[in-house]
Amino acid sequence: MTGKVLVAQGGGPTAVINQSLVGAVLESRKFRSVEKVYGALHGVRGIVDEDFLDLTQETTHNLELVGETPSSGLGSTRDKPDAAYCREIFKVLQAHGIDNFFYIGGNDSSDTVRIVAEEAKKAAYGLRCIHIPKTIDNDLVITDHCPGFPSAARFVAQAFMGANLDNAALPGVYIGVVMGRHAGFLTAAAALGKKFPDDGPHLVYIPERAFDEDRFLADVKATYERYGRCVIAVSEGIADKDGVPIATKLAKEIEHDAHGNVQLGGGALGDLLVEIIKRKLGIKRVRGDTLGYLQRSFVGCVSDVDQREAREVGEKAVQYAMFGDRDGSVTIHRTGWYSVDYHLTPLEDIAGKTKVMPDEFIAENGTDVTDAFRLYLRPLLGRGMPDAFRLRGNRVAKILKQD
Amino acid sequence: MTGKVLVAQGGGPTAVINQSLVGAVLESRKFRSVEKVYGALHGVRGIVDEDFLDLTQETTHNLELVGETPSSGLGSTRDKPDAAYCREIFKVLQAHGIDNFFYIGGNDSSDTVRIVAEEAKKAAYGLRCIHIPKTIDNDLVITDHCPGFPSAARFVAQAFMGANLDNAALPGVYIGVVMGRHAGFLTAAAALGKKFPDDGPHLVYIPERAFDEDRFLADVKATYERYGRCVIAVSEGIADKDGVPIATKLAKEIEHDAHGNVQLGGGALGDLLVEIIKRKLGIKRVRGDTLGYLQRSFVGCVSDVDQREAREVGEKAVQYAMFGDRDGSVTIHRTGWYSVDYHLTPLEDIAGKTKVMPDEFIAENGTDVTDAFRLYLRPLLGRGMPDAFRLRGNRVAKILKQD
Repeated sequence: MTGKVLVAQGGGPTAVINQSLVGAVLESRKFRSVEKVYGALHGVRGIVDEDFLDLTQETTHNLELVGETPSSGLGSTRDKPDAAYCREIFKVLQAHGIDNFFYIGGNDSSDTVRIVAEEAKKAAYGLRCIHIPKTIDNDLVITDHCPGFPSAARFVAQAFMGANLDNAALPGVYIGVVMGRHAGFLTAAAALGKKFPDDGPHLVYIPERAFDEDRFLADVKATYERYGRCVIAVSEGIADKDGVPIATKLAKEIEHDAHGNVQLGGGALGDLLVEIIKRKLGIKRVRGDTLGYLQRSFVGCVSDVDQREAREVGEKAVQYAMFGDRDGSVTIHRTGWYSVDYHLTPLEDIAGKTKVMPDEFIAENGTDVTDAFRLYLRPLLGRGMPDAFRLRGNRVAKILKQD
Repeated sequence: MTGKVLVAQGGGPTAVINQSLVGAVLESRKFRSVEKVYGALHGVRGIVDEDFLDLTQETTHNLELVGETPSSGLGSTRDKPDAAYCREIFKVLQAHGIDNFFYIGGNDSSDTVRIVAEEAKKAAYGLRCIHIPKTIDNDLVITDHCPGFPSAARFVAQAFMGANLDNAALPGVYIGVVMGRHAGFLTAAAALGKKFPDDGPHLVYIPERAFDEDRFLADVKATYERYGRCVIAVSEGIADKDGVPIATKLAKEIEHDAHGNVQLGGGALGDLLVEIIKRKLGIKRVRGDTLGYLQRSFVGCVSDVDQREAREVGEKAVQYAMFGDRDGSVTIHRTGWYSVDYHLTPLEDIAGKTKVMPDEFIAENGTDVTDAFRLYLRPLLGRGMPDAFRLRGNRVAKILKQD
């Protein structure tokens, strides 16, 4: 392929999505045949609006620094293009003589790439379309994991490591609500913050298992009685056996009538679970946090493994485009303990499909992870994971309060 | 002084409170005259219950590792002892022959130390009482700043640095609620996450200034019109000119009748502000996060300046006890750009008093910080603060959408 390259970023930002961008830009600029490398601002929206930056005129040095900066340097969009929207995209690509289209994103983005590629074929226009994966949800099929997930998982593990220490110092019940509407990978990552056998999170609730309120309260009660405290990780996407979101259900149950008019915002699920525990178990110190946007954009908590893989999927995308003869999505395949290879997978095998946590990663009781999951996730978290230590001094005999 | 040392930790945990503990323990163990070093579990509660660990029997190596671990290694308490409770404390100290009492904590803890010292004097019992400061709120008087605050401030600055990048990628309004009931230092720290002139947080609301809803909405509207987005840092403690908490006020205003029965939990203020902006300004993408417990116990975001100062106030406390002849609170005094000295300040000058942000740190418009505040806070954040970079490629001329 020759001529002009266009790169864009879609969907929610991640801590390493700019590594993929920079990998694609720098690799493209190495090819003598590449005349221009454009970046579209705010994803497909910027393509349709023809909002392009000429990244041929950006220094290598600044590109490297942008690569280390979290969130989407080109800006992103929540637009989910339909066929008509994709035709608009294709028209713009055609007008600007783009030969290579690289879109960094999740499920929806891979589907956009697929439709745009089809439009190009219909028009017999030589456009190479490559999807570069990213998502903190880790819900793309075929790939072993998605760039962006390891850094978010590291943030979640470190957050729960701290929350557990805090909860041990001032005992009570702590609930941390983690992102993930359908896949529980990120919530399950909280378990990687555990070190000592009585460390939290003691309970992990993911969307892959139906949430039952009575069961939940019994779990919390048993844990609280055993340890005098309880740390809980909950996916924002938990639902009951009929698929009704728990946030909706609890809001009704608390007879929060007026609440029906209020969109369930950031803190709602956490606050509702806190309220239910206080009311039904009579535990006084119950606290809830929603990790929110911090988990995907916190600056200064990143996995070096994630960084290098995000960079490489960007580079590989360009290599597949330049040396290969087909469109596709770059996928990561685990080969050892720990090593990976990259493949180019047909777009139709990825687009619009969702992966959830496999059963082998979920403990039988449904509220914990398995060693298989620990083995899967630990190498992705990278170097320099913090470690927590405890005092071990002997107890001093009581003098006034002898039994 | 000779004999037995008792150390305890009170109030909310911080990322470096164990540095002070370890500083006090290791320094005490250097003195030939010190026979035992005890740690009380869960602060004053553990003293009354005689729950002591013998830290003379803890390895130096593990103590160093505990020093680097956030949250209170001995456990903490929210108990605020009155005179009778302090007499119980004194009785236990007397029974165990404690000669030196070190209590690491904030305002309430310094007052406890003061009362216990008075009880000892009344009983003509030779007890040296030293308060070791810590609080993420930074609200102790006399001391330049409080150990624990710099690391929490660093977390807040990094969190807003990321939130700003996220908000730039997917524009809208973002509200981050920060801890601080009376003092706005920690919320104001969000401003240290700014780099480029149009970076957020664009608006900072602290308890030192009365919150006016109309003014707030006008500020948000103006910012949104100017930048197409708006990042806001808000103290959990903001109140109106009559001192009514804004969370309470907004809940009523939204006619959230049933909400009156529900304790305003973690996410409430953020959710309410989000709702008000959506309703009154008609902006669609409005998101809120409450930084919650993450900001005081996140593992892996710490200021090295804070670590070494927290260690030193612990060490100095022991030196004041061993070589000095009076009780007091260890205070930090800034001497240069950036250097500090430590003093021992009389307990009655510290106990129960609260410092808030001085006017010189607050911009005239009330929604920003001054350069004086930046100069105050920046050195406390320590080495290796992350930095954010932007793409600067030239715009490409439009082809289809020419004006």
